[in-house]
Amino acid sequence: MSEVRIHNLSISLDGFATGEPQTLEAPFGHAGERLHGWMFATRSWHGAGGSEGADHAFAARNDHGIGAEIMGANKFGPPGWQDDPDWKGWWGPNPPFHTPTFVLTHRPRPSVEMEGGTTYHFLDATPSEVLGQARAAANGRDVRIGGGATVVRDFVAAGLVDHMHLVQVPIVLGRGVRVWDGLEALEERYDIEATSTPSGVTHLTFTAKQRSDQPDEG
Amino acid sequence: MSEVRIHNLSISLDGFATGEPQTLEAPFGHAGERLHGWMFATRSWHGAGGSEGADHAFAARNDHGIGAEIMGANKFGPPGWQDDPDWKGWWGPNPPFHTPTFVLTHRPRPSVEMEGGTTYHFLDATPSEVLGQARAAANGRDVRIGGGATVVRDFVAAGLVDHMHLVQVPIVLGRGVRVWDGLEALEERYDIEATSTPSGVTHLTFTAKQRSDQPDEG
Ligand SMILES: NC(=O)c1ccc[n+]([C@@H]2O[C@H](COP(=O)([O-])OP(=O)(O)OC[C@H]3O[C@@H](n4cnc5c(N)ncnc54)[C@H](OP(=O)(O)O)[C@@H]3O)[C@@H](O)[C@H]2O)c1
Ligand SMILES: NC(=O)c1ccc[n+]([C@@H]2O[C@H](COP(=O)([O-])OP(=O)(O)OC[C@H]3O[C@@H](n4cnc5c(N)ncnc54)[C@H](OP(=O)(O)O)[C@@H]3O)[C@@H](O)[C@H]2O)c1
Repeated sequence: MSEVRIHNLSISLDGFATGEPQTLEAPFGHAGERLHGWMFATRSWHGAGGSEGADHAFAARNDHGIGAEIMGANKFGPPGWQDDPDWKGWWGPNPPFHTPTFVLTHRPRPSVEMEGGTTYHFLDATPSEVLGQARAAANGRDVRIGGGATVVRDFVAAGLVDHMHLVQVPIVLGRGVRVWDGLEALEERYDIEATSTPSGVTHLTFTAKQRSDQPDEG
Repeated sequence: MSEVRIHNLSISLDGFATGEPQTLEAPFGHAGERLHGWMFATRSWHGAGGSEGADHAFAARNDHGIGAEIMGANKFGPPGWQDDPDWKGWWGPNPPFHTPTFVLTHRPRPSVEMEGGTTYHFLDATPSEVLGQARAAANGRDVRIGGGATVVRDFVAAGLVDHMHLVQVPIVLGRGVRVWDGLEALEERYDIEATSTPSGVTHLTFTAKQRSDQPDEG
């Protein structure tokens, strides 16, 4: 069966995946681009000339074998985007998803087909219902939970995630949205590895001890 | 001038240095011994037969060149120890400090001389006042802040710490006392390194960019 994966979710030492406040000008609030500097430096992002070490090896896993993406309303746009009928995400006419992309929001709207294979679908539904739809759309390939922290937390707490990759960046943000809240005893359900790299970040990988897609579904 | 150091403060992925509730039977609450398993396995703790890799190298730094220790009331004893005139710490008649040891408490009592060079002094004073006394007692050697998280946070926030070594253990505690609170932007004052090791922990070292002992003192 296809797997549910999270990749490259970057957090501060104190566990925040975004700063605050989130605005059109500063999507990550006071965190700015600091959470993702490690990724921008890799070949995955920068292209030729980018680093090809461990950071690249981890970053590149993001794109392989994904057939659908699920994201939260706050990743899709700044506060208030639901009031703008023309908002179509941060990523321009040809978004980097290239698959059906499910946006969780309490104010859904009709689907929007973009260039390059991305179609945005807007859903107000439980994590397992949304996952059911995303799996069907993914056509046997894996489903990626793209963030932010709120949606990641909800899917992990519901036991729906097979693999999670977090990247801990050496900054202390102090405020924002924390990925850890509500995830006590995660080590009982996942094998955890830590890999620090020369750029100064630490990759944390969580691999489900048991396939986690059966219990909560249906 | 002598330095102020923190070593081996073990935290969960979500930043808790102890679980809850803290009791006589369970000094680390629901964390049990899981925060320190990495340390117990090293030669520093276990003696011959213990591991001699990176974990040992870090753990062993704890004892070199220390002339005084500062700790919080909750490290010294379980809740209510101040009501027991006979409580002399967790560590028996010959405690592992072997130096003057300053216990911060709002209910101080007379000093107690133990075997092996440890004398407990009980102080109700600000971090910089306590550090002044500890420095004088340390006789040119360094001062160690022994924990817990509350006292570590207070000394770091006051700009009094030269070097801090945290050890991140792959568990998610969910509750307890968190070391990060109030330490936003710590990366501006410290060079930070991360070193993950085969045991699964990640050593985080914070080295002050500027010697931090002058500004807040006196
Ligand atoms: N650090 C990283 O690597 C990374 C990765 C991705 C994103 N981000 C950043 O993280 C931030 C967004 O994260 P976030 O945690 O604030 O929010 P989020 O997870 O993107 O979105 C949460 C919102 O989605 C909607 N939602 C969630 N579950 C739902 C459900 N079951 N049904 C209906 N609606 C649902 C709700 O919005 P409404 O009630 O408003 O509809 C909820 O407030 C952004 O700043 C983004 O740039 C960071
Ligand atoms: N993870 C590790 O490596 C590690 C290391 C050491 C300890 N620990 C654990 O951490 C826990 C203790 O940590 P904690 O954060 O709860 O508490 P703590 O830092 O040990 O002690 C805090 C208490 O010390 C007193 N205090 C602090 N500053 C003071 C000041 N300036 N003047 C007067 N009194 C002051 C106050 O107690 P009163 O108001 O009651 O007097 C305060 O509540 C224990 O479970 C211990 O076993 C863990």
